[in-house]
Amino acid sequence: MSSRDQHPQHQHGEPQETDSRLVRLGLVQMRCTSDPDQNLEKGVAQIRQAASQGAQIICLQELFRSHYFCQKEDVAFFDLAEPVPGATTQVLSQLAAELQVVIVASLFEKRTAGIYHNTAVVIDHEGKLLGKYRKMHIPDDPLYYEKFYFTPGDLGFRCYPTAHGQVGVLVCWDQWFPEAARLTALEGAQFLFYPTAIAWQQGESEENNQAQLAAWETVQRGHAIANGVFLAAVNRVGQEGELTFWGHSFVCDPLGRILGRASTDGEEILIVDCDLEAIEATRRSWPFLRDRRIESYQGLLLRFGPSDVKDE
Amino acid sequence: MSSRDQHPQHQHGEPQETDSRLVRLGLVQMRCTSDPDQNLEKGVAQIRQAASQGAQIICLQELFRSHYFCQKEDVAFFDLAEPVPGATTQVLSQLAAELQVVIVASLFEKRTAGIYHNTAVVIDHEGKLLGKYRKMHIPDDPLYYEKFYFTPGDLGFRCYPTAHGQVGVLVCWDQWFPEAARLTALEGAQFLFYPTAIAWQQGESEENNQAQLAAWETVQRGHAIANGVFLAAVNRVGQEGELTFWGHSFVCDPLGRILGRASTDGEEILIVDCDLEAIEATRRSWPFLRDRRIESYQGLLLRFGPSDVKDE
Repeated sequence: MSSRDQHPQHQHGEPQETDSRLVRLGLVQMRCTSDPDQNLEKGVAQIRQAASQGAQIICLQELFRSHYFCQKEDVAFFDLAEPVPGATTQVLSQLAAELQVVIVASLFEKRTAGIYHNTAVVIDHEGKLLGKYRKMHIPDDPLYYEKFYFTPGDLGFRCYPTAHGQVGVLVCWDQWFPEAARLTALEGAQFLFYPTAIAWQQGESEENNQAQLAAWETVQRGHAIANGVFLAAVNRVGQEGELTFWGHSFVCDPLGRILGRASTDGEEILIVDCDLEAIEATRRSWPFLRDRRIESYQGLLLRFGPSDVKDE
Repeated sequence: MSSRDQHPQHQHGEPQETDSRLVRLGLVQMRCTSDPDQNLEKGVAQIRQAASQGAQIICLQELFRSHYFCQKEDVAFFDLAEPVPGATTQVLSQLAAELQVVIVASLFEKRTAGIYHNTAVVIDHEGKLLGKYRKMHIPDDPLYYEKFYFTPGDLGFRCYPTAHGQVGVLVCWDQWFPEAARLTALEGAQFLFYPTAIAWQQGESEENNQAQLAAWETVQRGHAIANGVFLAAVNRVGQEGELTFWGHSFVCDPLGRILGRASTDGEEILIVDCDLEAIEATRRSWPFLRDRRIESYQGLLLRFGPSDVKDE
């Protein structure tokens, strides 16, 4: 049984707490319509449902207020953007305080005319907006024309202390970048949440589709393993234009074991309990963070190219 | 059918070659005795066998000339170390030239009195020692007391151009570090080879054993996916002291798909064909390297701790 009590966060170096500490996650995998108000209404209803099942941290999918509009480049879609904080965060903050849950939500942020971001917010169980993360890695591929809409994030990689653990948030395309997971883990994250909108395209073979889905899940499980954290990916479902969003939201533990996984085509609230003690236990057995060769990683700041380190 | 012809390497920016180019890998998964000469003899025989099956790049497991001696700290084991280049590379160079194969081998390097490394070499098909990689990430856990034996590598992350592709080599514990895979891929590697000695310990549950094995495979598949490269892990088999080496050598493609996998307990030569065109094709579909936020990765050079990037 998970507890709703607020536990103090450990300080680094403090002796390990021996009892387990369960945190219940709720992942809202849903279908969207073209009506932002309807989607918000549904999101709110699903959050209520997740909370009623005991979820303590609830995460919505990427850009949950709209269809995934990036399938084409159309300036009219900038109308969907809103300030953050703004109308949506106000609704979600009130909801978080009422239900005493942490909410992670992905929004289309209007920063000013001509600067828009793909932004995720973390709202704590008292309704406070802890901060926002602006998607750092922006894709641009056929049917995912995000570079047209989203200015790359300029807030770096973030982690937010909540009543239910240290919450790191990254968004969709970020999930392919080990750097993003590592940097967020180094900020202290115990959970990596990935609101996502990833889909199969029409006309691809089933074999290729399954390979993409498997790669998507595998690379993220790899991040959980490499960093010794829990990881939750929250994807949408449904057909929108030429894209069939593949759902398959999941949570894995610090050993990369799948703790829960949603279907590829149905709306679902995925409820998963995570024992935070697993982080300490896993990192004691496999102390990767101890052994990173930080003095030899400068090449990570380069685009490509042979280093100048030579043999003796 | 794989070709033994030497193809010129592509220059960056050169138009894509449209035909596929198969490279046949041979992974030697073997059992070791306490006699280094016997192990070398077996390694040579297995390389001959792999070559006879058409393998063009052949990789031996970590420290193939001896038992995995790091189960205890004993200065006598430094006697096993040898200069690199030295007696073993001489044998392997002659063999490589005779068989016209590339050989990747892991050795216990004596650099000078008091400085020893866990070193891997790449020898080209003409018998030339292209260079060595000194294991950068050194574990130290019960039964893996490597920090006692091995000075951390000081040559950085390397890639070697061979007649059969760009070969990057990392060693065992490196396989848990996304930084190592990324840096080697950025050096141009098309293949990441991981000579390995990883084992189950006595008294662990079967569930735990399987979770460790799955995590080990998953994190490496994740590296292949994140970097768009082929990856080959070569592990030993057999019981040595308290360790049961779990074999399970495998090769995966740039989508993380397993192309071939050896058993967990038998000596085996795993032969796998890799189509180098898959690298170009995968990276075109999922251009992760294009979108890395290299100006925002400075935190990767830190051990831990919140960054100083704050909200507006």
